[in-house]
Amino acid sequence: VSEPVQAAQLGERVTAALRHFLAGRRAGLAELSADLVPAADAIIDYVLGAGKRMRPAFAYWGWRGAGRPDCDAAVTAAASLELLHACALMHDDVMDGSETRRGQPSLHRRFAALHDAAGWGGSPDGFGTSAAILLGDLCLIWSFAMLRGCGLDEAAVHRGMPVYDQMCTEVTAGQYLDVLAQAQRATAVETALGVIRLKTAKYTVERPLHLGGTLAGGDPALTAAYTAYGLPVGEAFQLRDDVLGVYGDPAVTGKPAGDDLREGKRTVLVALAAERADTGQRALLDRLLGDPALSADGVAALRKMIAGTGALAEVERMIAERVAAGTSALDAAPIDPAAGRALCELAVAATARAG
Amino acid sequence: VSEPVQAAQLGERVTAALRHFLAGRRAGLAELSADLVPAADAIIDYVLGAGKRMRPAFAYWGWRGAGRPDCDAAVTAAASLELLHACALMHDDVMDGSETRRGQPSLHRRFAALHDAAGWGGSPDGFGTSAAILLGDLCLIWSFAMLRGCGLDEAAVHRGMPVYDQMCTEVTAGQYLDVLAQAQRATAVETALGVIRLKTAKYTVERPLHLGGTLAGGDPALTAAYTAYGLPVGEAFQLRDDVLGVYGDPAVTGKPAGDDLREGKRTVLVALAAERADTGQRALLDRLLGDPALSADGVAALRKMIAGTGALAEVERMIAERVAAGTSALDAAPIDPAAGRALCELAVAATARAG
Repeated sequence: VSEPVQAAQLGERVTAALRHFLAGRRAGLAELSADLVPAADAIIDYVLGAGKRMRPAFAYWGWRGAGRPDCDAAVTAAASLELLHACALMHDDVMDGSETRRGQPSLHRRFAALHDAAGWGGSPDGFGTSAAILLGDLCLIWSFAMLRGCGLDEAAVHRGMPVYDQMCTEVTAGQYLDVLAQAQRATAVETALGVIRLKTAKYTVERPLHLGGTLAGGDPALTAAYTAYGLPVGEAFQLRDDVLGVYGDPAVTGKPAGDDLREGKRTVLVALAAERADTGQRALLDRLLGDPALSADGVAALRKMIAGTGALAEVERMIAERVAAGTSALDAAPIDPAAGRALCELAVAATARAG
Repeated sequence: VSEPVQAAQLGERVTAALRHFLAGRRAGLAELSADLVPAADAIIDYVLGAGKRMRPAFAYWGWRGAGRPDCDAAVTAAASLELLHACALMHDDVMDGSETRRGQPSLHRRFAALHDAAGWGGSPDGFGTSAAILLGDLCLIWSFAMLRGCGLDEAAVHRGMPVYDQMCTEVTAGQYLDVLAQAQRATAVETALGVIRLKTAKYTVERPLHLGGTLAGGDPALTAAYTAYGLPVGEAFQLRDDVLGVYGDPAVTGKPAGDDLREGKRTVLVALAAERADTGQRALLDRLLGDPALSADGVAALRKMIAGTGALAEVERMIAERVAAGTSALDAAPIDPAAGRALCELAVAATARAG
């Protein structure tokens, strides 16, 4: 029944499942009020427009890893994670005041621009913020509905829901810890690693695999193997993101150069640099990190300083170590061989990317 | 098996169910990180602290109306609506920039004060906003989990979930339409009535009744009766809220006098006043409505003007008409008699209150 499903092809099937689900939701909103149609279209643009579909890929291969055949219902279940992720991004951009996302204006900026162009009353920014909060809430609500109605049998959905619930709780808790760490200007490497474990490693890799495996009725040994693979690979994914947030090419990442520096993100890379900095380097870091008006020269100075402490090389070493640990955990695991190969390729693709 | 459950007693059982559920969630967050405990405690304070428990009451009596006996699982299912409501209030207060809720500082103000007192870095307001968005998200996620794990059998939960999903979608869509109406400075009575139908009538009364009735396995005639009762009673509930937002006693409502006027809310009361105003009255309304610095004298002038147009008396007439229509819909309906009496009392209590 099953044949190897290539990554690109899977991504297209995920997008098709989202397109189908969201068309139904758009019709539902249109029935309530014609004024809701632009809001539905904004969600559709946002969700279908871009994205690496990482979480659906891990959820899908989590299902396949249990030895279950390819099927559209599993793809739909996996695709529901993309709606949760849309909520996380919309709310995150409001919290960070981010102007752009994936190379486009962020959702709250889009609605602020709409308000401005229409010449409505009150504050455009306030309207943009409200719209992004509410559209994010809708995406979160709909992610539950999409998973529930994925087409797998009731018993499977019933098994999967607690995993999904835990995943939603963890990513939200991780976001809160991240906001708290920024506020407390935490510089400990351990704090930064704790945040990325919840916010990324569990959320992006481990829990999607658990969800797919649990929907498939996989046993505890499979769950344990997914953890042994997922946590290090997920950490490596975020560490790559942290490196790209400082050293990435804006043309590839879709974000302004050095955006994380301007935002003052407390990443592992920054924490390592702070730990290893001499007095002069530390003074530079304290002065420039989190400066919203940070210039191109300032970005260049911080890049040089962070590399100069050895923090960049250390993070690259940590990435390589984690990818090796994660992929070697697959060797002895009770995972379907085709899924094992796909997970090995995903680990490399997720951590060697340029954007 | 069943005996009449008094309103106060039901409210206490709802609170007890929430206390029990949230204690489990607090323990779950504490396991993830000790830094999450204050966030869990803030949610617990917020949810257990106050509230009329209106939506759980309607959901509970929706269950009983189908002839099903009192049971703790039905109370727990009903209580889950209070977590959805907590999300709506937390996010609403961020969007409106409200300083207070139920006589206490709003959640985002509480976290801003915490940030301020701790002397953390960055903006206290930004931290407060982020915390309120994320804690609201957690409440929304947890409401699904509480309903799913309420203790009713799987088939009942499976029946109820689409109703719950629709309810969540409608209230969020209604909030968006409300924000849009404020931005567009909409003054049409029809627009204001459309918003309160989604935002309040369906959300506060009709859908909770449908949820309870559907969990109980009620038939389409019961659902239709709940709509015939729920929509007018729900509209009357919001119309009472609108009157209290302008004429309410701060000591009873927990909100500053004339708060809705200061916020510039586009209520049915205001829309009627605008429609009936003469040139001078209209100029006063346009000048003062939505002025964030509106003085006590300004509030008094607007109160007098709105009553002077006859809008206040008209809204009182609309409330009475809707309560009569809703309660008379109960007479011929296939509803358990004890539940019918309770719904009649609830309609009066919800629309004759002073705060």
